[in-house]
Amino acid sequence: MDQGQGFFEPLDVAAYPRFSGLPTFMRLPHVADPAQLDIALIGVPWDAGVTNRPGARHGPREIRNQSSLMRRVNHQTRVCPYELARIADLGDVSVNPCDMDETMDRVVDFYTAVRKAGALPLSAGGDHMVTLPILRGLFDGTPLGLVHFDAHSDTTDSYFGGTKLTHGTPFRRAIEEGLLDPARMIQVGIRGSMFDLHDLDFARDAGVRIMFIEEAFELGTAGVVAEIRKVVGDAPCYLTFDIDCLDPAFAPGTGTPEIGGFTTAQAQQMLRGLRGLNLMGGDVVEVAPPFDPGGVTALVGATMMFEILCLMAEAVGTRKGRV
Amino acid sequence: MDQGQGFFEPLDVAAYPRFSGLPTFMRLPHVADPAQLDIALIGVPWDAGVTNRPGARHGPREIRNQSSLMRRVNHQTRVCPYELARIADLGDVSVNPCDMDETMDRVVDFYTAVRKAGALPLSAGGDHMVTLPILRGLFDGTPLGLVHFDAHSDTTDSYFGGTKLTHGTPFRRAIEEGLLDPARMIQVGIRGSMFDLHDLDFARDAGVRIMFIEEAFELGTAGVVAEIRKVVGDAPCYLTFDIDCLDPAFAPGTGTPEIGGFTTAQAQQMLRGLRGLNLMGGDVVEVAPPFDPGGVTALVGATMMFEILCLMAEAVGTRKGRV
Amino acid sequence: MDQGQGFFEPLDVAAYPRFSGLPTFMRLPHVADPAQLDIALIGVPWDAGVTNRPGARHGPREIRNQSSLMRRVNHQTRVCPYELARIADLGDVSVNPCDMDETMDRVVDFYTAVRKAGALPLSAGGDHMVTLPILRGLFDGTPLGLVHFDAHSDTTDSYFGGTKLTHGTPFRRAIEEGLLDPARMIQVGIRGSMFDLHDLDFARDAGVRIMFIEEAFELGTAGVVAEIRKVVGDAPCYLTFDIDCLDPAFAPGTGTPEIGGFTTAQAQQMLRGLRGLNLMGGDVVEVAPPFDPGGVTALVGATMMFEILCLMAEAVGTRKGRV
Amino acid sequence: MDQGQGFFEPLDVAAYPRFSGLPTFMRLPHVADPAQLDIALIGVPWDAGVTNRPGARHGPREIRNQSSLMRRVNHQTRVCPYELARIADLGDVSVNPCDMDETMDRVVDFYTAVRKAGALPLSAGGDHMVTLPILRGLFDGTPLGLVHFDAHSDTTDSYFGGTKLTHGTPFRRAIEEGLLDPARMIQVGIRGSMFDLHDLDFARDAGVRIMFIEEAFELGTAGVVAEIRKVVGDAPCYLTFDIDCLDPAFAPGTGTPEIGGFTTAQAQQMLRGLRGLNLMGGDVVEVAPPFDPGGVTALVGATMMFEILCLMAEAVGTRKGRV
Amino acid sequence: MDQGQGFFEPLDVAAYPRFSGLPTFMRLPHVADPAQLDIALIGVPWDAGVTNRPGARHGPREIRNQSSLMRRVNHQTRVCPYELARIADLGDVSVNPCDMDETMDRVVDFYTAVRKAGALPLSAGGDHMVTLPILRGLFDGTPLGLVHFDAHSDTTDSYFGGTKLTHGTPFRRAIEEGLLDPARMIQVGIRGSMFDLHDLDFARDAGVRIMFIEEAFELGTAGVVAEIRKVVGDAPCYLTFDIDCLDPAFAPGTGTPEIGGFTTAQAQQMLRGLRGLNLMGGDVVEVAPPFDPGGVTALVGATMMFEILCLMAEAVGTRKGRV
Amino acid sequence: MDQGQGFFEPLDVAAYPRFSGLPTFMRLPHVADPAQLDIALIGVPWDAGVTNRPGARHGPREIRNQSSLMRRVNHQTRVCPYELARIADLGDVSVNPCDMDETMDRVVDFYTAVRKAGALPLSAGGDHMVTLPILRGLFDGTPLGLVHFDAHSDTTDSYFGGTKLTHGTPFRRAIEEGLLDPARMIQVGIRGSMFDLHDLDFARDAGVRIMFIEEAFELGTAGVVAEIRKVVGDAPCYLTFDIDCLDPAFAPGTGTPEIGGFTTAQAQQMLRGLRGLNLMGGDVVEVAPPFDPGGVTALVGATMMFEILCLMAEAVGTRKGRV
Repeated sequence: MDQGQGFFEPLDVAAYPRFSGLPTFMRLPHVADPAQLDIALIGVPWDAGVTNRPGARHGPREIRNQSSLMRRVNHQTRVCPYELARIADLGDVSVNPCDMDETMDRVVDFYTAVRKAGALPLSAGGDHMVTLPILRGLFDGTPLGLVHFDAHSDTTDSYFGGTKLTHGTPFRRAIEEGLLDPARMIQVGIRGSMFDLHDLDFARDAGVRIMFIEEAFELGTAGVVAEIRKVVGDAPCYLTFDIDCLDPAFAPGTGTPEIGGFTTAQAQQMLRGLRGLNLMGGDVVEVAPPFDPGGVTALVGATMMFEILCLMAEAVGTRKGRV
Repeated sequence: MDQGQGFFEPLDVAAYPRFSGLPTFMRLPHVADPAQLDIALIGVPWDAGVTNRPGARHGPREIRNQSSLMRRVNHQTRVCPYELARIADLGDVSVNPCDMDETMDRVVDFYTAVRKAGALPLSAGGDHMVTLPILRGLFDGTPLGLVHFDAHSDTTDSYFGGTKLTHGTPFRRAIEEGLLDPARMIQVGIRGSMFDLHDLDFARDAGVRIMFIEEAFELGTAGVVAEIRKVVGDAPCYLTFDIDCLDPAFAPGTGTPEIGGFTTAQAQQMLRGLRGLNLMGGDVVEVAPPFDPGGVTALVGATMMFEILCLMAEAVGTRKGRV
Repeated sequence: MDQGQGFFEPLDVAAYPRFSGLPTFMRLPHVADPAQLDIALIGVPWDAGVTNRPGARHGPREIRNQSSLMRRVNHQTRVCPYELARIADLGDVSVNPCDMDETMDRVVDFYTAVRKAGALPLSAGGDHMVTLPILRGLFDGTPLGLVHFDAHSDTTDSYFGGTKLTHGTPFRRAIEEGLLDPARMIQVGIRGSMFDLHDLDFARDAGVRIMFIEEAFELGTAGVVAEIRKVVGDAPCYLTFDIDCLDPAFAPGTGTPEIGGFTTAQAQQMLRGLRGLNLMGGDVVEVAPPFDPGGVTALVGATMMFEILCLMAEAVGTRKGRV
Repeated sequence: MDQGQGFFEPLDVAAYPRFSGLPTFMRLPHVADPAQLDIALIGVPWDAGVTNRPGARHGPREIRNQSSLMRRVNHQTRVCPYELARIADLGDVSVNPCDMDETMDRVVDFYTAVRKAGALPLSAGGDHMVTLPILRGLFDGTPLGLVHFDAHSDTTDSYFGGTKLTHGTPFRRAIEEGLLDPARMIQVGIRGSMFDLHDLDFARDAGVRIMFIEEAFELGTAGVVAEIRKVVGDAPCYLTFDIDCLDPAFAPGTGTPEIGGFTTAQAQQMLRGLRGLNLMGGDVVEVAPPFDPGGVTALVGATMMFEILCLMAEAVGTRKGRV
Repeated sequence: MDQGQGFFEPLDVAAYPRFSGLPTFMRLPHVADPAQLDIALIGVPWDAGVTNRPGARHGPREIRNQSSLMRRVNHQTRVCPYELARIADLGDVSVNPCDMDETMDRVVDFYTAVRKAGALPLSAGGDHMVTLPILRGLFDGTPLGLVHFDAHSDTTDSYFGGTKLTHGTPFRRAIEEGLLDPARMIQVGIRGSMFDLHDLDFARDAGVRIMFIEEAFELGTAGVVAEIRKVVGDAPCYLTFDIDCLDPAFAPGTGTPEIGGFTTAQAQQMLRGLRGLNLMGGDVVEVAPPFDPGGVTALVGATMMFEILCLMAEAVGTRKGRV
Repeated sequence: MDQGQGFFEPLDVAAYPRFSGLPTFMRLPHVADPAQLDIALIGVPWDAGVTNRPGARHGPREIRNQSSLMRRVNHQTRVCPYELARIADLGDVSVNPCDMDETMDRVVDFYTAVRKAGALPLSAGGDHMVTLPILRGLFDGTPLGLVHFDAHSDTTDSYFGGTKLTHGTPFRRAIEEGLLDPARMIQVGIRGSMFDLHDLDFARDAGVRIMFIEEAFELGTAGVVAEIRKVVGDAPCYLTFDIDCLDPAFAPGTGTPEIGGFTTAQAQQMLRGLRGLNLMGGDVVEVAPPFDPGGVTALVGATMMFEILCLMAEAVGTRKGRV
């Protein structure tokens, strides 16, 4: 399956139809050593941070399953990621569903190793708390910018009377720890009723650009893209895609759905508009298969991973002079 | 839970996460006496009027269940209803699923009592027939205006060879009985094939403004809002939201789905555009949980109730000088 | 049910509510002789061509089931097909799910007989491979134009190492066989990742107009309609509607879903824009009920059949001087 | 499909596989005139009597759908009903879902006509209230015996403060009206918590033999059969099969499920043990498809209808000297 | 609803049909003070201990929902619990889904208060880990006996490399802490593949009687009951019912299903056989609604709670001389 | 994962919980070379032979998915297969869903290679037609005996007017081709209505022992086991387990369900009774995930594979002197 020079290709659909074969991400080989990769596809099957419905621990397996429907080339951008970068499935991070502290450490260690091996991670959650240890692992001393699609800001201080680590708090922690540069952070699609008028004060005061979905609808996808580019700039950044930025009509299988969200077409247009960003990693989180009769949400998750993969492969290709 | 002066607050999510606690509307206390309330949240678990798929009798319970996801403040209008009005769950109307006449009387009596106690009702159906006895109970001698979101006009004369009370006839009855002022009625989102070219003649002849969904799409949400305001004016009115005004992609769990409907985002923009209307009550009807795998329709119903609650609370707050 | 002159009417909903009665297409009588009909509604319960998820063989039965919700008159175009043409349910084509060659022949024979009887077919698949034998049966020596709504071009040469007959190949075969005039073919809504940059070369080289969904979104439904009319012109044509042209939020029950598709409202607007086309037949394919919890996809399929039926009935009425 | 002498045969599976063709009961022809039939298969799509979950109105359609899986010969008793009696699908009774009194009359009239035409009815409900008008229609002056499989006795006096017609009361009404002979009535499978220690006093006092399911388990199917035969004897009787006599593991799709019920294998053994009973009709009721993901309950309903059909056909064959 | 002397009664079904009203356990009033109760029905919506599929946190809400189907009197034992004991819904324990240690303490405190108030708890989980803090709260210095229905022994030492608190370990902890007397413990229904031949050594060495389901099938329900009575004796004991002791055909909605389990009828017979046991509390755990399409598992859970409630009420009634 | 001497072990659950990691059969390594194996676990994702509902092509993937729940040791027989034989996942056979003849050849070739490599195959279908090419591949000149659990005899001559290869015909073909010795064949669990009284004549005339499920219920599992052993004897045999031998309550996800079947507990007892049989291979077929909401049928399939694996491993261990 290796096409020379260490490039990897998806399993051949002529011999193994989409319903056949082991469900790795994008039907790529499973490769255990990140040093062989430019981009590592990773599962983080962990939902210890959810405050409402659990189930995102089953996300990586179902996203892999549905990713069998992905083909090789982006029909709009005409990017074929597998010709630009060495990409494979690095497997799941080892997690302990009953011990949050230990698993935080394991995830940090895993991504630190990926970073040191020179690979960029593209991950499937898991709930949004997993982005925090990923960012810790990726941190090399310089805060990253952040493109953040979500219905929720996830910058609450704590939940349940003091709990600092939940899927509603990761970006507050990341800002506090200096992992992200709030001046280069943008959150798109925020909506849903608030506990309090001051829910977003921390993020706003820190300098995060918060774009409610109503503003995004006003701007249109091109306008949103322009704003993202303006905020994030050319320096290294990370892209996190919470599936609940989409309307539950498009992505019902998630733990904290909020109606009035994006369509998948809008999300694809926004993602494709981000070509050229200096991406150091990305993730798709909060796909919760137990609430996804029919598997459409996992298919959406897999397709969004493919869109982000095209962006990251192009970034890699540019850096390596392959484009 | 009472914050002094008789105001009520939702159950504290810090102690009782959203999946926890008894599922009242919006996690508010259950209060049996409408005299303690400015706005009463009421369930009418009754679907005796359905002509196709039954199941809306299960609507109030599932809407209550999903309403645990509602928080306190509307993120766009910044209204917190619980600071503007005394709001609680008044429980379900007692119904007899096998006796239509008796239950009509019970519902009328219940809403008459609510009106006399000085509370405004915000109800969860049940099928759309429940709006008729609600309007009878609310009637104080002056016909109300009506903002009516629906795929169907519900102004047929009779069904099944002469049956006058079904969920396809309530607004014809209400006009005939003088409960509504047809000149101040607007129906938005009407669509779907018709039995006959003359299906809508009665309503049009009576002066009702019928807006097909194609016209609504043409006007855009701002244009629809302007038209509603023009028709309904400043006098007292009622707002009824049939969940099937939405596309079945967004609200599959309903008895008579019609494709080609509104998105939830459009519905929210239209509802938020109605701030300042002189609302005397509202309802969300036709949520049928047996046809709602995943519960998304009930979540949509709960969120639309929250949007209408914000409108009604602001209306109350204005009348009482709290805004 | 025959209203004189051989016209047929749907089963009376006053006596038999929508959940009642045998589920024929549109509740029309079952008529075995196509010579009695101007338009024949036909089921082709066959999915031998699917490359991914099977189940479209169950499509005709569930589309019939959901078509009980269709009424008589198109609310926007005000067309009542049953007053313009003799329309009935001609039943299912006899198929052999385990013998592709034999069934190809049976389908061709069936449609040849329909054509010779002077009736126009409107079919419910089945997977998209069924359109090939339909076109063979309809062929009278002159290639037809084609209006093709789909996520996929279905013009691949072969699958699985040489298999020429699959649901990914029918339109290549039809062009090769001279059944269709590629210069009068347009494919609308194409999207999804490609196996190869050259996937669409055959179709483009042949002269087929391929409109990616991104272009369709740019043009808007009116623009798409104008382009279709320009390509297809006034000569006889066929309309094929693959349900996967729609987004899976609207039509999850299909074998090869692609996110980022049309809404049903957009599809309806495009179809209604095609009044006056010289239609010789149509179909709705790829409804796969096993992947359709709730039955919404079958309802969408039934409604799209009704929209196409209105177009075809108007075409018949015009030809026969009934309009 | 008529094999001479007026006998009817199911649609040929060689030409039309089970997923194909219009879903009539057992794939038999639809015949409108009961005088052509010895046994009429009838749908009563009506659930106006349910006290809990509605949906049994959709039962006839789904039972017809699943009955496509029935073949011709009972593998254990070796009875082929279609060789012993003229059997066809007589269609649905016309019902009005919103008018109980009118529909009661329609059902009575329908079954009176069936009786007068000389056909025996085998019906698919609908909720259990439909058995009351069926029995009224069948009544020719002599009370019938009753074999009654059910989790509930359905002999309550009234519900909801005086309502006499619900699915919890039909057999009390039938006894009061003299339609049934309580001394020849047996209820098998009764279970579930009771409102009151005296719930069953009326039935017991009237002489009905009530067999709790615990007793049935003790006796075994052969013992139950012996007891049924002893109670009912040789005189004319009716057999009513409420699907909720089965455990919800086997038949989840019903309105008032009670755990701890029969398996389908046990039910089949009991039914097959009733060969030779003097049956005048039968029904299968309370199949509620909205609560039947996967359709297994409708399949069970169809199979139980087939078992009862074999019994009735043999009874007809015996009377007509065909056995 | 209080019938004098502090007894409580379920909501009247004549006025509020089963689909109506707030879903408390058994439709009983919500009472906040355990001192008013002999038996307190309690929800513990917490699944932090699951090693496989989460979702049991949603158990209490859905069990309450389905418990609306329970009536007042056990049809076989003729016990009416509400006449023997003061019983109400005490609500949910406050939990923190993201902090195991804190929640352990909260649960212990809650049950300590219940014990000190003189009420016996009957709880709905939650995963099986919740039984450990319940037992800690109930501990008054004397180890309890245990009747334990389960597919799994739950006496593993630790999971995931050292985690001591999971739903696979509670009874090892309880034995180690002296909360239970292993010589008076019996585990019934144990099955499923083992990690190791020594999985059960700790429990066996401690003196726990482990009955594989194969032995239970051999003994029959009467034999199992006799063995339970022999092991547990007359001293105070606790009864814990893990829903996965049942076969997944009967209870699919659980986190770690094992095929080859009990039927609900067998479980009911075993429970009813335990009349007279000296019960100090009980629970039903591991109902996971996200894996329970149709809600049958929650109905089973509610019914098992009712069976246990009858046992506990009789125990209370005996102690208080009410029987 | 290799424990020396070429033995393979399942993925460690301590590091990778059951919801984590790539879903191979039993969490074993994927090994491409059958020569490294004593027993090869193989998927045949092919359902081209189904006569009713398709979907079994998705069986191998979902059985693999659910097989993550299997542990290492059979709790009743105390067999640990991984200590007796070298076992791994050999992957899927390459299939062409649209070309029956070609795929037949591919499957035969695949199993011929497995046989020649000295490995025994344990396969997951796929529909029952896959057993025919498996038997062809395994054939070494001596007909095998057959233990066949099924609701259907699958010995029909042809379907649909002459089609010889369907899932209803494999064992007739295998007998005709001399692959099986009909005198050493036994079919257990046969039931369901028949097309004709002579449906089973071929099999009976050939000498096959057909045991209707009613006889199996009479004999009890021990009696069935004795009869199987008597028929099959000590010579080499094959075991095929059609999931529809089970009742649809236990295994709803299959293409041709028949009610009145075995429980899983009965099936496990029968399989465990077959220790010592001279097994040359086995399969579990007809698991159709699209009809399996909740995934229980796939879990049943995985568990039955584990039971058969224990039998086969013990057979291997005995031959190799490891027991």
